[in-house]
Amino acid sequence: MAFPKKKLQGLVAATITPMTENGEINFPVIGQYVDYLVKEQGVKNIFVNGTTGEGLSLSISERRQVAEEWVRQGKNKLDQVVIHVGALNLKESQELAQHAAEIGADGIAVIAPFFFKSQNKDALISFLREVAAAAPALPFYYYHIPSLTGVKSKSVRAEELLDGIQDKIPSFQGLKFSDTDLLDFGQCVDQNHQRQFALLFGVDEQLLSALVLGATGAVGSTYNYLGKKTNQMLEAFEQKDLASALSYQFRIQRFINYVIKLGFGVSQTKAIMTLVSGIPMGPPRLPLQKATQEFTANAEAKLKSLNFLSFPGLKDGNMEACS
Amino acid sequence: MAFPKKKLQGLVAATITPMTENGEINFPVIGQYVDYLVKEQGVKNIFVNGTTGEGLSLSISERRQVAEEWVRQGKNKLDQVVIHVGALNLKESQELAQHAAEIGADGIAVIAPFFFKSQNKDALISFLREVAAAAPALPFYYYHIPSLTGVKSKSVRAEELLDGIQDKIPSFQGLKFSDTDLLDFGQCVDQNHQRQFALLFGVDEQLLSALVLGATGAVGSTYNYLGKKTNQMLEAFEQKDLASALSYQFRIQRFINYVIKLGFGVSQTKAIMTLVSGIPMGPPRLPLQKATQEFTANAEAKLKSLNFLSFPGLKDGNMEACS
Amino acid sequence: MAFPKKKLQGLVAATITPMTENGEINFPVIGQYVDYLVKEQGVKNIFVNGTTGEGLSLSISERRQVAEEWVRQGKNKLDQVVIHVGALNLKESQELAQHAAEIGADGIAVIAPFFFKSQNKDALISFLREVAAAAPALPFYYYHIPSLTGVKSKSVRAEELLDGIQDKIPSFQGLKFSDTDLLDFGQCVDQNHQRQFALLFGVDEQLLSALVLGATGAVGSTYNYLGKKTNQMLEAFEQKDLASALSYQFRIQRFINYVIKLGFGVSQTKAIMTLVSGIPMGPPRLPLQKATQEFTANAEAKLKSLNFLSFPGLKDGNMEACS
Amino acid sequence: MAFPKKKLQGLVAATITPMTENGEINFPVIGQYVDYLVKEQGVKNIFVNGTTGEGLSLSISERRQVAEEWVRQGKNKLDQVVIHVGALNLKESQELAQHAAEIGADGIAVIAPFFFKSQNKDALISFLREVAAAAPALPFYYYHIPSLTGVKSKSVRAEELLDGIQDKIPSFQGLKFSDTDLLDFGQCVDQNHQRQFALLFGVDEQLLSALVLGATGAVGSTYNYLGKKTNQMLEAFEQKDLASALSYQFRIQRFINYVIKLGFGVSQTKAIMTLVSGIPMGPPRLPLQKATQEFTANAEAKLKSLNFLSFPGLKDGNMEACS
Repeated sequence: MAFPKKKLQGLVAATITPMTENGEINFPVIGQYVDYLVKEQGVKNIFVNGTTGEGLSLSISERRQVAEEWVRQGKNKLDQVVIHVGALNLKESQELAQHAAEIGADGIAVIAPFFFKSQNKDALISFLREVAAAAPALPFYYYHIPSLTGVKSKSVRAEELLDGIQDKIPSFQGLKFSDTDLLDFGQCVDQNHQRQFALLFGVDEQLLSALVLGATGAVGSTYNYLGKKTNQMLEAFEQKDLASALSYQFRIQRFINYVIKLGFGVSQTKAIMTLVSGIPMGPPRLPLQKATQEFTANAEAKLKSLNFLSFPGLKDGNMEACS
Repeated sequence: MAFPKKKLQGLVAATITPMTENGEINFPVIGQYVDYLVKEQGVKNIFVNGTTGEGLSLSISERRQVAEEWVRQGKNKLDQVVIHVGALNLKESQELAQHAAEIGADGIAVIAPFFFKSQNKDALISFLREVAAAAPALPFYYYHIPSLTGVKSKSVRAEELLDGIQDKIPSFQGLKFSDTDLLDFGQCVDQNHQRQFALLFGVDEQLLSALVLGATGAVGSTYNYLGKKTNQMLEAFEQKDLASALSYQFRIQRFINYVIKLGFGVSQTKAIMTLVSGIPMGPPRLPLQKATQEFTANAEAKLKSLNFLSFPGLKDGNMEACS
Repeated sequence: MAFPKKKLQGLVAATITPMTENGEINFPVIGQYVDYLVKEQGVKNIFVNGTTGEGLSLSISERRQVAEEWVRQGKNKLDQVVIHVGALNLKESQELAQHAAEIGADGIAVIAPFFFKSQNKDALISFLREVAAAAPALPFYYYHIPSLTGVKSKSVRAEELLDGIQDKIPSFQGLKFSDTDLLDFGQCVDQNHQRQFALLFGVDEQLLSALVLGATGAVGSTYNYLGKKTNQMLEAFEQKDLASALSYQFRIQRFINYVIKLGFGVSQTKAIMTLVSGIPMGPPRLPLQKATQEFTANAEAKLKSLNFLSFPGLKDGNMEACS
Repeated sequence: MAFPKKKLQGLVAATITPMTENGEINFPVIGQYVDYLVKEQGVKNIFVNGTTGEGLSLSISERRQVAEEWVRQGKNKLDQVVIHVGALNLKESQELAQHAAEIGADGIAVIAPFFFKSQNKDALISFLREVAAAAPALPFYYYHIPSLTGVKSKSVRAEELLDGIQDKIPSFQGLKFSDTDLLDFGQCVDQNHQRQFALLFGVDEQLLSALVLGATGAVGSTYNYLGKKTNQMLEAFEQKDLASALSYQFRIQRFINYVIKLGFGVSQTKAIMTLVSGIPMGPPRLPLQKATQEFTANAEAKLKSLNFLSFPGLKDGNMEACS
């Protein structure tokens, strides 16, 4: 087969795994979730079982089922469904990669191991290659999050990994870059002359800073509920309307900056998405704990004040209304 | 049932998982390994599938098989076999805990989650309790390693966790304390008035500093091959012969200090154990990489110079007897 | 007096303190250095006695003399001379602030204390206010470098500091933001509605990412020798020629990325500046050590390959020559 | 001259610098402070202008005056007065070293530079040597605090520094080891065969763990007000009464553990010392802020509950009264 069949670009929502109140996976709402992303947020790519999806808090069996359901529900509706198959142990990661291929996913993504950490670039590539080899026909994305996977504050730089990577991992198709080191990110783009790779930025609150450096898309949790606003930013940037793009970015920043101060993580993302989409995301699984009602009330008030709450069927928040 | 049936004390070897050259588990050598620990090192307790055992690099299925084999081979030879059942996801951790009970292990140990980290003591206890509840009749040990599991450099202190823990986790029987914060460790001992808990120190190279604060035992990788020497230190300390105890501690430190400078981890532990015991431990699994020949040669020379290499059947500590 | 007399904007070179081979300050070359910045690099603002200037390795007496010489030599040539007067102790910082006012500097900058660190925003502002009050007529800039001054990985965010700052420090005129957290930086810009403050970015290798978020200028060490190239980037950005701006940024990144891997700090900056400008910068002062000849040779080759070496009188490197 | 004239051993109080309410140094109480240490706490060695003494928050001129006053008041009362002369810049550190010699101090101590950090052992020794050379006849102590002075989490190990140090710094007489890495500390002791060096431990709350490894003394802030209790621990340890020594250590730990949770630093040490000694220590200097009244009330209650508050003239707290 030839890569890439179609390039992953634009916004990619890092999907939440909806759960019932007793902590089991709430499969029935996934179809509704797909429709919401496509129709209300204009987001047609997803990243399943990643950090936001609590992938590493699910059993292997659950990860398989979740992946299957998203692929099934996304059929003919979504452009691409990428499954995160990273795990601490190679065998299960390989099993998940093979499974992703079997169910017809559009790609797999892998995080570097972070209990035992790769001591150098070669060790990391060896690990990634073994996973990729379990699903050689699937586009492979590396999920770069150095704050987690670094070896004693020294992590493998993405730009070094990228150098000659397709000789080692033929299915390599790009990366999710979840870091603020834009020297490293820039040098990834600089290398990517033929634009063969998807270089997806993963720090939602400063996406504009990566767009200007050549990001080809973005993966993040906020695109679940701020996808439409972020798409407006992407369009403004595309049209070189930097003032508008910045105005969108600042509005998004105001929200994220606010919730970070309240304590912001996957639990809180679940509460916000429930609020904005109306689809129940449920509580997170231990060791995470449910967002407090106080958090949810504060987040709701902030969303309203920023004109970010628009329910299905209602007209979207109006830019002019914002200072 | 009543706790404790028998208290875990003295040295506990954190067992290596022996592997073949192609990275599969080498089950047949485990029986020989048990005999070596008991006869040559005087170590009769083991901690299986922990960090040293690459537990988190094994699939759940492999972890079950490894646990079974150690329990089977240790029968009537070892005092206690504790199985580490910690995992990033609660479900698999519970499955492993239940399995440990079924195969007749003597206890289970659990590390705090470290992808999503517990945001506070209550969240951590909630997680641990759910695991413990899957095997309520098995002594439960908490594996405290704050450098890994801490939340943004602020981790839950062990002494806080200990306070009233048996009300929440009735099977709680103690902890492995893998940190150098001896204020925290001391305050664990200080609370342990009735000596009901096993407070096992996990930083081998400074065990003496914890003994003086009341450590009731120790869990570590070096007890696989320096168990005999360390037992001599324990005996000297028991007899208040502090000068001898210190002399043993310094000899052990010289070795560990030396290998740390060369780069010391599980890969290197496997190489050293192969060297000292004569039992092939094999390579580590990815993302770890095999220790270099240079490391092994240097470690061997150091062991010889410290009189630490003594083969089965030969009298210990005899320089001439060493090749 | 009324603020601001003139706003600090564009590139600000963080000046090196030239030294003789025996480690004393080489005052006589400062005049030549001023001319070089203005004529060869197009840089007309300087930041004296900061990190690059080894300000904290100089005695108070030396800091005064260095400040005086830059002010004297810069007269009628430079636009603005800002003196960094930060010190671990308030008294000396105040003395330096007062001295800066006396000699006619255009502003002062202050780093947060970093031995004892400010435990919160109020403590930090109290400290800064005391320094500012020693020179109330001088524009005051806060030098934000959270990796250094943070309290146990939690530092005061710049955007919080900015909120209402002029009520507390009337002479406050802006900040140097030396961090990659562009949420924080963006929210500083977002607050700066009337564009009353200079928001100067301090991470040279990713300046473009901050320009798009509204940086009004930049302070850095590389503007000593890459000022002209960076000014070209600023102009391209100003004209919305993002492709050219990115091309300039990538060329600069290639150089910085290369030297970072060799080990890059003030010692190396001195060697590079000597090489590019022809003005002898001398060795650094202890605890820094002189850059190796190997470093210098490698850096020179890289500069040549990027067409970054152009000696006074020669025509500047030609963009077309670069891939 | 020959080293050592007399060896620094036992407890060394890291002295507070008393201040008036308006933040100036309160010289007149220093004489009373000396008497208190000697008579009430049994502490006859002091470490002046260190962390506890806010040395780095004082101007050079103030540091000189403080040192002079302690030497003057300590004459014929104290055994040894060691002056910390560490500074970020070599010149002022040398000036302070020379001054310490002139006023008749018994030794100088130096912290590694921590703005620019030593990149390796040689660079660190070069810096320390230059300071020592300014006062070649004074015993020189290295103040090892790697959490502050390390280069990107990798600091120079004390045991490496010690190796052959007197060839490079003839006046080297020992170190203050402020870290919990007891492998490093142990290997310092292991090298110190002829017991030529003072190896002083600097983590008060776990001193017993260092005594068993061969610490020859201790430097710390708590010896200002818990010196008597700590001396009792030292005596018990000396007599191999480990149970009593541990009982003393646990009581001390209970206090420190308690105040750490309230937020414990130099500000709080000043409040506690004022409370226990009755001598007014005053507020700290910015950027530190005065301890809250709530802290002081809680600390007082804890001191009472531990029987640690005994005013001059009253009989000391009674061990039997404590559980």
